[in-house]
Amino acid sequence: MRRNQHKNLMNGLSAFLCFGLLFLADIASAQKATWIWYPGDYEVWLSNKMQARRTERGSFLPPFWKLDSHYALIEFHKDFELASPEKVEIYADGQYNVKLDGKAISGYPHSLDIPAGKHRISLKVFNQGNVPAIYVKGPHLVSDNTWETTFEDKEWIDQSGKTSDISATKYFPAGSWNLNDPKTPPSAFSLPTKEQSAVSKDKKEHSIFVDFGKETFGFVKLIGLKGKGKLSLHYGESKEEAMSLEHGELMDPMDVNQDSKTDYIMPGSRAFRYVNIVYDDNVSLDDVSMLYEYSPVEQRGSFKCNDEEINKIWDVAAYTMHLNTREFFIDGIKRDRWVWSGDAYQSYLMNYYLYFDSPTVTRTIYALRGKDPVTSHINTIMDYTFYWFLSVYDYYQYTGDKAFIKQAYPRMQSMMDFCLARRDKDGLMEGLPGDWVFIDWADGLSKKGEVSFEQMLLCRSLETMGLCANIMNDKAAAVKYNAAGAALKKKIFAYYWNPQKQALVHSRVNGKQTDNVTRYSNMFGIFFNYFSDTQKQEVKKSVLLNDKIQKITTPYMHFYELEALCAMGEQDYVRKQIKDYWGGMLKLGATTFWEEYDPFKKGAEHYAMYGREFGKSLCHAWGASPIYLLGKYYLGVKPTAPGYKQYSITPNLGGLQWMEGSIPTPDGDIKVYASTKQLKIEGAAGTGLLRFRSQTNPMCSQAKPVSKGNGWYELSIEKGKKYTIDYQELK
Amino acid sequence: MRRNQHKNLMNGLSAFLCFGLLFLADIASAQKATWIWYPGDYEVWLSNKMQARRTERGSFLPPFWKLDSHYALIEFHKDFELASPEKVEIYADGQYNVKLDGKAISGYPHSLDIPAGKHRISLKVFNQGNVPAIYVKGPHLVSDNTWETTFEDKEWIDQSGKTSDISATKYFPAGSWNLNDPKTPPSAFSLPTKEQSAVSKDKKEHSIFVDFGKETFGFVKLIGLKGKGKLSLHYGESKEEAMSLEHGELMDPMDVNQDSKTDYIMPGSRAFRYVNIVYDDNVSLDDVSMLYEYSPVEQRGSFKCNDEEINKIWDVAAYTMHLNTREFFIDGIKRDRWVWSGDAYQSYLMNYYLYFDSPTVTRTIYALRGKDPVTSHINTIMDYTFYWFLSVYDYYQYTGDKAFIKQAYPRMQSMMDFCLARRDKDGLMEGLPGDWVFIDWADGLSKKGEVSFEQMLLCRSLETMGLCANIMNDKAAAVKYNAAGAALKKKIFAYYWNPQKQALVHSRVNGKQTDNVTRYSNMFGIFFNYFSDTQKQEVKKSVLLNDKIQKITTPYMHFYELEALCAMGEQDYVRKQIKDYWGGMLKLGATTFWEEYDPFKKGAEHYAMYGREFGKSLCHAWGASPIYLLGKYYLGVKPTAPGYKQYSITPNLGGLQWMEGSIPTPDGDIKVYASTKQLKIEGAAGTGLLRFRSQTNPMCSQAKPVSKGNGWYELSIEKGKKYTIDYQELK
Repeated sequence: MRRNQHKNLMNGLSAFLCFGLLFLADIASAQKATWIWYPGDYEVWLSNKMQARRTERGSFLPPFWKLDSHYALIEFHKDFELASPEKVEIYADGQYNVKLDGKAISGYPHSLDIPAGKHRISLKVFNQGNVPAIYVKGPHLVSDNTWETTFEDKEWIDQSGKTSDISATKYFPAGSWNLNDPKTPPSAFSLPTKEQSAVSKDKKEHSIFVDFGKETFGFVKLIGLKGKGKLSLHYGESKEEAMSLEHGELMDPMDVNQDSKTDYIMPGSRAFRYVNIVYDDNVSLDDVSMLYEYSPVEQRGSFKCNDEEINKIWDVAAYTMHLNTREFFIDGIKRDRWVWSGDAYQSYLMNYYLYFDSPTVTRTIYALRGKDPVTSHINTIMDYTFYWFLSVYDYYQYTGDKAFIKQAYPRMQSMMDFCLARRDKDGLMEGLPGDWVFIDWADGLSKKGEVSFEQMLLCRSLETMGLCANIMNDKAAAVKYNAAGAALKKKIFAYYWNPQKQALVHSRVNGKQTDNVTRYSNMFGIFFNYFSDTQKQEVKKSVLLNDKIQKITTPYMHFYELEALCAMGEQDYVRKQIKDYWGGMLKLGATTFWEEYDPFKKGAEHYAMYGREFGKSLCHAWGASPIYLLGKYYLGVKPTAPGYKQYSITPNLGGLQWMEGSIPTPDGDIKVYASTKQLKIEGAAGTGLLRFRSQTNPMCSQAKPVSKGNGWYELSIEKGKKYTIDYQELK
Repeated sequence: MRRNQHKNLMNGLSAFLCFGLLFLADIASAQKATWIWYPGDYEVWLSNKMQARRTERGSFLPPFWKLDSHYALIEFHKDFELASPEKVEIYADGQYNVKLDGKAISGYPHSLDIPAGKHRISLKVFNQGNVPAIYVKGPHLVSDNTWETTFEDKEWIDQSGKTSDISATKYFPAGSWNLNDPKTPPSAFSLPTKEQSAVSKDKKEHSIFVDFGKETFGFVKLIGLKGKGKLSLHYGESKEEAMSLEHGELMDPMDVNQDSKTDYIMPGSRAFRYVNIVYDDNVSLDDVSMLYEYSPVEQRGSFKCNDEEINKIWDVAAYTMHLNTREFFIDGIKRDRWVWSGDAYQSYLMNYYLYFDSPTVTRTIYALRGKDPVTSHINTIMDYTFYWFLSVYDYYQYTGDKAFIKQAYPRMQSMMDFCLARRDKDGLMEGLPGDWVFIDWADGLSKKGEVSFEQMLLCRSLETMGLCANIMNDKAAAVKYNAAGAALKKKIFAYYWNPQKQALVHSRVNGKQTDNVTRYSNMFGIFFNYFSDTQKQEVKKSVLLNDKIQKITTPYMHFYELEALCAMGEQDYVRKQIKDYWGGMLKLGATTFWEEYDPFKKGAEHYAMYGREFGKSLCHAWGASPIYLLGKYYLGVKPTAPGYKQYSITPNLGGLQWMEGSIPTPDGDIKVYASTKQLKIEGAAGTGLLRFRSQTNPMCSQAKPVSKGNGWYELSIEKGKKYTIDYQELK
């Protein structure tokens, strides 16, 4: 229909100009041909491939949960209309057929001539090993996510050859990413690499010890390799690890058999700063470099302030995050290289303040969920299932991407069915056989009975289901989920709140409240906004700032602890904590942030974990949380309606003299500069609301005082406009 | 333990001799190393591969239902004890690791030295494209179905490195077949072939027309192919089809570019009797032959009688069955080459009287069921789901294979859950959107409302679930299924039995009985034994032998119609029907039996179906039913307890002068010879009960009269004994 309009419009120039944008938009759309697949399938497939790359001392170490697979057979189709005939190119990854208006074309056509008019094109692709995918490109007809897909078309025919009209097949819009090269099917995708040199080398008779200057990731390149004999590479995140031929986590043994000098790139990517290469008498090696492998995400977020230590922390956090942002958000680059839901959940949040790269988020969400039937919690961990629900809630809030919710909703439902079926007689969830109740790595942490933290996460998960059910217009389900959430919230306070302790206790065992208070449910209660203002103040005192409550030693839970404090305006305190904790790692020479950090440990003790000398990951995504904290609670930007349609900017210097930075949104970056005397703001699409406290009337007539006496002012921020406000910071 | 015994036993010769059999058994078991996999996974994978071989006029034509996949990651393990150290060889199809007693071996070991003592060996294999499979062979430790497998071992560790002790993983015994060559993993399996020559060739300037003398299957071989240009192969089950360049179902186009003469084997297997090869000026071809591809199943059943036409029918049926017995039991070799449950159900029954090849049965049952979640009826067809349940019932009755029931039971449960959730308010099943109610290919057959035939099959399916639940010792479920089955049986008679019509009517629409009577539910009511003896006689007269009731034109439903008549002792009538119907096809030159046969059609009209000139399959498995009828109702052999632990032999000549044949069982063949004057029987393992009618006292003292006056005699049959009884047939 639109095409016909154009034809007519071309008759008059004024009309053409008037519709010029529409015309350009159509040409542009024709350039957007991309590989498409059944939604979620490529994500599951690619995560299998990635997660099967883990080795431990040369031994293959895959995940211990179910790996799902893509559907081996997929139908793709699109209904469209052409004003004039066109030829389309066709590519498919797999064995395929092509039908135009229900009629099959013989063989495996690479192009198709389509007459003008209304048509349906459909392709059916079988691929057992790789994801069935197609790429179609014509002047107007292109493969993109307007195509529909199914794994069962149910197109049976009756005796006369007539196709069934009651097949009731459910179609989903096709999945895609940015794989736009017809010659490179999705199965051939790999992350880019670039060569990097070592900063120092120590060459001995039978070894080379190489230092790349900082934590890195990729493929070691052996330059001028020659001879016949054994060679082994011992990788180290620390010097000690690379030196330890016996106990380093990563090593690659190889047999060299090379008459003349050659450059050899190791087949497996590894994490390391140091590489210790040891070889036999009859082997020689000239030099070593590496191919750095990275995700080409764009760093849109930024942060600078007057405190150079905090700037360094932000930079190292950003680098830590970048190393762990691969095909998916992974936990750590040395060891697991798996997709873990609790770890990924934090990466998503950091991502919203660093890259705002939605495909890596949705890809990771798909990969974690896998396929039905649900046979286990995500990663086998109860809390990780709940973080998965929460991640969908946050994703929608930050991006406003309803299309993804529509794709994911059926998988959310079956995942929630699994959870609800595992509740006990009191409607609470406790660890059943096969459930890992993780919470945190903390000595002696009890996982027994009904842990309050898990109920808290389940409650938020039910609220997420209510939200998504409403998006889906599934009103009955929304009512059901919201009611279940509300009932559970009541129970949480009835069963776990201890007025004497002014805190939620850790658990119930055999139906009885325990005495134990831990930080976990209490800190989540704050930023989930489950506590009353009074309770928040009580909890802050009795738990968060109470040294008698078991301390947190992982950056993982520090993330939430500091978020809770920031949510209560404790930015000044948190700034000091950040300098202490993350600054502490920097002082120990960290070039990326760690899986766990205990300031009371000494020297190489820091590298041990899981009973292994070098078991700890020194580049762990959950170590990068300052990115999130500084963006959300210092620059103070967050969406208040899905997709930043509305957002708030509430800068809080927390004791800094000045700070500035960018916060990415779906449409443009928000820029914030704040000192104790001046604010400079530039908005993105949507409507922002700047809130700040000033001792004096700010020098900006649009800024209105919020209410009498407390010094708060508000200012509405529009896209593309710059605002400068002189004020006097009021703490 | 056993190994230790041997060591001690070797000290004394007498003891050695005494336990000699045990010793030999152990050596033998060591030779039984075989490839193993997760049960059902290879079956699903192989069926995908096979079903993706269908083409139609050179265009790929895969199934329209969901194709499931194997689990990409599998753990295999075995606990064992060795009296002395041994070295085992290790093969794996995929990326793998090997652990002995929980400790990983570095790299990808091809052998392992295991010390004496108790051990656990475990392997974990990842393979996205092919089924993860392993082969382990040592003097004593070998891979076989005593190994356990899982797709999620849930072996998480705590902070100290300790493995979880509450993983609650469900393990299943490994699946296997007869793939015993370590160099050929299951993914490399293919059926054997042998070269066959044409019986006539008609060579013209630009074509060769070849006749292989009878329906066949395999890869055409082009001998002395040379030149540059186009060549196309037009296959035909009939001469007319091969001659029709436009409308034949199967054709392979190719571009020849060959400087010197070469022999070329076509990559795709096809069904045909005739091949018409047409080529350009610049192409030449010396000769044509073919590689016949076949399943190496052993034909154990046999049948011969005085009627040469019936002997020919049996032979052609056996050949039809052999062609359709491939990796799985398929419907027809020309067109679908898919696994269809209703078709396969009949093949299983025929198989019990021809090959007794259990692996092809269980493989097909696994392939049809696929994996959870159930999103559709099997093959999308409601009745085909029910046949699937029935096939498990029959399989157990014929083979007594409890191990298979244990593997299949969870998949039976979820399939039945799917069915039960689709019942309407009256507890009956009618076609919902997406359900194909098939029943039979018959003009004008109504599929509306609640069809009695479907309720009948559901009822039998529930009985099957009750039986299997009892085998699983799942008592509560057994009670539930049996109660649901009994309740449904009552409803069937309350809703559908029409005393005036003396028959079950075809359907209810909007809660009201329709007027329509069809043969389907009435004939099943007889051999399901749902009717009383009076009802059976009424139905025989009012339906089965009533020409006013719409006639059946497919061998598919003839199978059950004739079975119903045989079950009522109408062997004489059925013999004439067989001669008429199957003999009719032979008179038209059939070399295999057809998908459908209507004696009133003429010439090439017989080849048309589905609105296509050559749409009909001329080699369809369901055409081979005389094998089943002659074995079960003439030679008269069937198991009366699972696995032929007890069986009955009730020969019925049905008007023949004599007949003889073999019926395979799990342990030996039963041999039956019967003439009007003599019976000769040889039993297999288990206890047989021969029943026959004689006008006179039979010449066999062990044969006892059953009751007074009706001429029935009984004789117990033991394994390995031969019985000869002279008698006088009493019809």
